[in-house]
Amino acid sequence: MSTNEVKSMNTLDWFRDDGDKKLVVGVAGIILAASFLFIRSPVTEPATTVIPQATATYDYDPCCGYPCLNQGVCMTWPGNNYTCDCTGTGHYGTHCEIPTWSAWLVKKIKPDPESLHNFLTSYGWLWAILNRIPFIHDKLMAYVYLSRGDMVDSPPTFESDHSYITLNAYFNESYYARALPPVPEHCPTPLGDKGYKDYPDVDELIKKVFMRREFIPEPHGTNVLFQYYAQHFTHQFFRTDYKKGPQLTKGTGGVDVSNIYGLTETDRQALRSRVNGKLRTQVINGEEFPPYLKDVPGYSMDYPANVPIPETGKFALGHPFFALLPGLFAFSTIWVREHNRICDELLKVHPDWSDERLYHTARLIVVGEVIKITIEDYVQHLSQYKLRLTFEPELTHGTRFQYHNRIHAEFNHLYHWHPLIPDALEVNGTSYAIMDMAYSTAPIFKHGLDEFIHSMVKSRAGALTNRNHANVLYPILKKVIENGRLLRFQSVNNYRRRFGMKPFTSFEDMTGEKEVAAVLEELYGDIEAVEYYIGLLAERPGPSITPLTMVNIGGPWSVKGLLANPICSPKYWKPSTFGGEVGFNIIQTASVEKLFCYNMKSQCQDIAFKVPAGTP
Amino acid sequence: MSTNEVKSMNTLDWFRDDGDKKLVVGVAGIILAASFLFIRSPVTEPATTVIPQATATYDYDPCCGYPCLNQGVCMTWPGNNYTCDCTGTGHYGTHCEIPTWSAWLVKKIKPDPESLHNFLTSYGWLWAILNRIPFIHDKLMAYVYLSRGDMVDSPPTFESDHSYITLNAYFNESYYARALPPVPEHCPTPLGDKGYKDYPDVDELIKKVFMRREFIPEPHGTNVLFQYYAQHFTHQFFRTDYKKGPQLTKGTGGVDVSNIYGLTETDRQALRSRVNGKLRTQVINGEEFPPYLKDVPGYSMDYPANVPIPETGKFALGHPFFALLPGLFAFSTIWVREHNRICDELLKVHPDWSDERLYHTARLIVVGEVIKITIEDYVQHLSQYKLRLTFEPELTHGTRFQYHNRIHAEFNHLYHWHPLIPDALEVNGTSYAIMDMAYSTAPIFKHGLDEFIHSMVKSRAGALTNRNHANVLYPILKKVIENGRLLRFQSVNNYRRRFGMKPFTSFEDMTGEKEVAAVLEELYGDIEAVEYYIGLLAERPGPSITPLTMVNIGGPWSVKGLLANPICSPKYWKPSTFGGEVGFNIIQTASVEKLFCYNMKSQCQDIAFKVPAGTP
Repeated sequence: MSTNEVKSMNTLDWFRDDGDKKLVVGVAGIILAASFLFIRSPVTEPATTVIPQATATYDYDPCCGYPCLNQGVCMTWPGNNYTCDCTGTGHYGTHCEIPTWSAWLVKKIKPDPESLHNFLTSYGWLWAILNRIPFIHDKLMAYVYLSRGDMVDSPPTFESDHSYITLNAYFNESYYARALPPVPEHCPTPLGDKGYKDYPDVDELIKKVFMRREFIPEPHGTNVLFQYYAQHFTHQFFRTDYKKGPQLTKGTGGVDVSNIYGLTETDRQALRSRVNGKLRTQVINGEEFPPYLKDVPGYSMDYPANVPIPETGKFALGHPFFALLPGLFAFSTIWVREHNRICDELLKVHPDWSDERLYHTARLIVVGEVIKITIEDYVQHLSQYKLRLTFEPELTHGTRFQYHNRIHAEFNHLYHWHPLIPDALEVNGTSYAIMDMAYSTAPIFKHGLDEFIHSMVKSRAGALTNRNHANVLYPILKKVIENGRLLRFQSVNNYRRRFGMKPFTSFEDMTGEKEVAAVLEELYGDIEAVEYYIGLLAERPGPSITPLTMVNIGGPWSVKGLLANPICSPKYWKPSTFGGEVGFNIIQTASVEKLFCYNMKSQCQDIAFKVPAGTP
Repeated sequence: MSTNEVKSMNTLDWFRDDGDKKLVVGVAGIILAASFLFIRSPVTEPATTVIPQATATYDYDPCCGYPCLNQGVCMTWPGNNYTCDCTGTGHYGTHCEIPTWSAWLVKKIKPDPESLHNFLTSYGWLWAILNRIPFIHDKLMAYVYLSRGDMVDSPPTFESDHSYITLNAYFNESYYARALPPVPEHCPTPLGDKGYKDYPDVDELIKKVFMRREFIPEPHGTNVLFQYYAQHFTHQFFRTDYKKGPQLTKGTGGVDVSNIYGLTETDRQALRSRVNGKLRTQVINGEEFPPYLKDVPGYSMDYPANVPIPETGKFALGHPFFALLPGLFAFSTIWVREHNRICDELLKVHPDWSDERLYHTARLIVVGEVIKITIEDYVQHLSQYKLRLTFEPELTHGTRFQYHNRIHAEFNHLYHWHPLIPDALEVNGTSYAIMDMAYSTAPIFKHGLDEFIHSMVKSRAGALTNRNHANVLYPILKKVIENGRLLRFQSVNNYRRRFGMKPFTSFEDMTGEKEVAAVLEELYGDIEAVEYYIGLLAERPGPSITPLTMVNIGGPWSVKGLLANPICSPKYWKPSTFGGEVGFNIIQTASVEKLFCYNMKSQCQDIAFKVPAGTP
C-alpha cells in the first residue's frame, strides 16, 4: 500500500513551500477556490469492488495500514481483503487515488495550506488594501467560514468507542465527536502498522521533549491575558466527564456561555439576582464581585476538600473549575459585570421588561460579544493573519453551512496549551509562582483587580512549542498523552491528511531542527507513528502563535464552533433577538478592550492580547 | 392593525382555490419556485423604527394583536408602542407588509398551498408521466425536501416558557421546540386580543365537536396497520416528560429508532443478545418474539401496577409505552425480527465482524429502512399525492438543508390522531373493544401474530375528522386540549399564516359545513380565536388522510425530521456506513410489504396501509 500512498502524496507536491513565488496564483486561488467550493457537482462514483490481496498477505486487519486515500473509507472483508468507499471524496479508483475532473481542478487552483497560511500572515500592504474593499473582504470571510466549516463533519460521524460510523456518534451527545475514528483494534502497532509495537514511555517522552529547560517567551508578544482568555473561553465546551471516561463530555457542544452562567438550569437560576435580569454580585472594597459560595445555597465549586480555604476565598462562578486560578476569577468577574452592565443598558430602553426577559436577552448579547471578541481579537492575534477577521454571520446565510456543532475529542487535546503558562506572574512587584496561585484569589484582593489585570496584560506568555512546559504541569501533560492513547488517536500525519495538509516526510521536516528530531526519531522510529498531540507541539514554529498543523486543524473547529452558534443563524441574527438595535449594536461594537474598559474601576490602558510595546 | 392585516392577506388572494385553471402555471411554478428558492438574494432592510401609537391606545401589550405580517417579529416599547423587525422576511414597511422585488416575484409564481395540494393529489395521468422522467422527478423531490425543510426553523427559535427567543430554545434540548412562541402573557384574551376572555369549556367542546356519534370510516381505505404504524413510529420522538411538564421531552429529537432499541445506552445494552449483533428474543409457539420483561434484568415497562398481568403477558420492548396495545407489540416484534434478519445478512458477508459491529451496522440499516418505508409507503398513503415520493437523501447534499432536527410541541399535538382508532378490532371472528386490548397481548397469542397482522390490514381506520373520537379516548383528548392551553398555543389561523396558508375567513370556511361551524362559532365567537388542535381537526376533509392544514403544517416537520437524520448527510450516506452494498441495498429496496413478508411465519398477502380491494 505504501507505494500507492507515496505516489498519491507526490501529486500533492506540485505546490511546494515557496509560497512567495505563488503570490498571484494564491490571490486568484483564494477567490476562485471560494467560488468553486460554492458549487458542488454530483460525482459519478464507480461501485466499490473487493480487492483480492493477490500479492500481499495480512495477518491483521488490512485497514490498519490506512490504504484508502483522500478520506476514502476502508472496510475489511473476509480473507484479509478490503475495499475503499470513495463516495463523496471527489476521487475514485481502488484506493480513491484518481481525482474527478472537478476535484482535480480544485487541487490545481487551490493553494496548499502552508502557502495559503504564509500568504495570510505576510504582505501587510496587500492586506491593508484588500481589507478595505468590502466586496472582496466579504468574499474572503465567506470563504474562511465555509472552507473551514467544510472541514468539520456536521453532523458528526465518529466517537471514541468505535472505529466505524455508529448512530451513537450523533444521538449520544455525551460523546465528544471525532474527526478521525480510533485506530482499529488488533493492529500490529498502536498507530496502525507503522512504528514500534508499543508507545514510547510517557515519562521519557515528557522529560526529553516537553519539560521546560528555560522559559521560552512567545515570540509574537502574546501575554497572560490571552492565556487566561483561552482557558476561560474554552472551558465552556471542554467539560470532559473524567469520572466516566475521556471520550465523554458534560458540555452542550458549543459557545453556550455556560462558563459565565452555569451549565444546568438549576445552576443558572442559583446565580441570578432576580432583579432587572442581573446576576448575583457583592461589593468588596467598593467593587462588584461574584458572590461567595456560601451565599449561593446548593451551589458547588471544585475547591479541594483537603486545602484550607477561608469562606471569603471561595466564590460561586459559572464554572466549577474556575475556582482553580485567579486569572479565571478575574475573567469571571469582568463577564458578570458586563452582563449586569448590559441589563442596565436594556433597562434604559425597556423599563417595562421583566427580570426574566432582561436576563435572557442580556445572555444572548453576551454570547454575541464572546463570539465577536473571540474572532476579532483573540483569533486575530492567535492566527497573526493580516486578513482582518470579522464576525459577519450573515455571510453564511443561505449556504450549506450547518448551524449545529459538536466538540471533538481531538479539539480538546489540541487545546492543551500549557506552554503558554509562565513559571510565575509578577503583580505589583510580588512574584506569584503557579502553585502560589492555585485555588487562591489572594493576588487579586491584595493588589486589586485592576492591578492584576494590568499584570496579565504586561506579562509574557510562553511559546507554544516543545520543551516549554513548566515543571509543575507534568501531571496534566502526562494525563493528556495517556488519554490520547486511551482514545487511540491516529497519527499526527493522518490528521494532517484529514485536514488537507501534506504529511511530514521526516522528523526534521516536522521539527525544523535536528536535536528534538533525533530524540523523537529514537522514540518513534517512523514519522508515520508520531502521536497526534506530540506532533502538534513538536512542529517547528510558524507565523502564528501555534505551529501550522494546530492552526489548520484547530481553525476549522474554532470557526465552525463560533459560526454554528444559533445566534448566527438567519432566524436569530436580527435586532429583535437582542432587544432591538441597542443590543445588536453592543455585539457589533464589542472588543476585548471595551469589555475591560467598561468594567474596570480605574484606567484601562493597553488592554490587548499582547504585551504593550516596549515591554522587556 | 386589523385593516393592515386584512389588506395584506388580500394580496395573497390572487391565487384562489380554482387550482384546476392554474394547472400549467402550477407545473411551471413548482419548478421555477424550486430554482428561485435555491437562490437567496440579500435583502436590504430599513432600520426598524418605533411606531408611536397616535391613533390607537392599548392598555395591554400591543403585540397581543400580532400586528407584524409575514413573520416579522413584534417587540414592545414603552408607552404601548411596538416595532416589527422585518429582517429576513423578504418584506419591509412598518408591519413588514411590502414585499421586496424577489419576494413579490416568488409570490406571483408560487401556487398557493391549497392549489398545489390539489394539483399533487389529482391528474394521475400527468404524474404517471412526470414520475417516470428522472430529471424532473429529482427536481420535484428536491423541491419537496427543501421547501418543506425551509418551513422549519433550524436551529429552533422558541420553546414554551418564553414568548421571545432565548438560548434555552437551542441549548436546552429537554424542551420541545416551538414554531410559534406562546401567546404573550397579560393579553386580553387567551389567543391574544380576539375572541372571548376565556377558552370554551373543554368538556362542552369535546362533547359537541369531538365525540364519535357513529364510526366514520377513513374515506381512502386507511387501515389499522397504518394507525399502528403511526403510533409505533412517532413515539420514538414524542416522549413528553409529563412528570415535569408538557413543554419537555425525554427524546433525542428525531428518528433515532429508540422505539425499537431503547432510549438509553443502559436500556439498549439490556435488550442485546450479545451474539452476532442480535437483539434478545425467545421462541413462543415456534415463533420468535421479544423477551419477557422478567428475563431482562433491570428493564422497566409501563405496565400499570394495579392491573393483574401474568409474567408471560409482560414483554421487554424498545419503548415502555408499547406495553399499551397489541398492535404496538406486533410492530415491535416485526422490527426485532427484522433487526436479527439483517444481522444474518451482514454475517454472510462479514463473518469476521464482532457482535458490536454487526449490532451497530444493523441499527443504521434499520434507521434507513424506517425512513424509506415512512416516506415511500406511509407518507405516500397519508398525503395521497400522485407524485411518487422517494427517499433520495443525496438530493439535499450541498444545499442549505440542515441535518439536525428538534421535535416541536405543536407537531406532537398535531399528531394526536385518535379518530383513526375504531371502536373495536375483529380478529378471526372475535371482536376486541379498545379497552379489551389495553395492556394485553392475548389477541396475538390466541390467534397468532400473522392472523393479528391480517386483521390490522383488513380493518378500516376512522376518518381523521371532528366527531370521530371513540368514547373511551375522552381523557386523552381532554389532556391534549388542556396541554395546548397550558402551552399557550397561538390560534390555528396564526399557524396557517406561519406555514404560508391563507387564514380561515369564517367558521364555515374552516369546516366546509354549517352544523359544526355554528357550534364552534358559538364557542369561540371569532375565527381568529380558534385553538390550534381544534382547528386542525375541525377543518373540512381534503384529498389527503388529514385535512389540509395538518398536511401543510405536519408535512414540513415530517420531511425535515426524516431527511435531517444523520444517515442522510453526505458523510453517512454511502455503502460503507451500512456494511457495504449489501446493507445499502436493504435500505434502498425496503418497503412495508417486505418488512412484514420477511418476518411473518405464513402468507403475507395484501400488506399495505389500506384495506384490500373489495373490503366492505
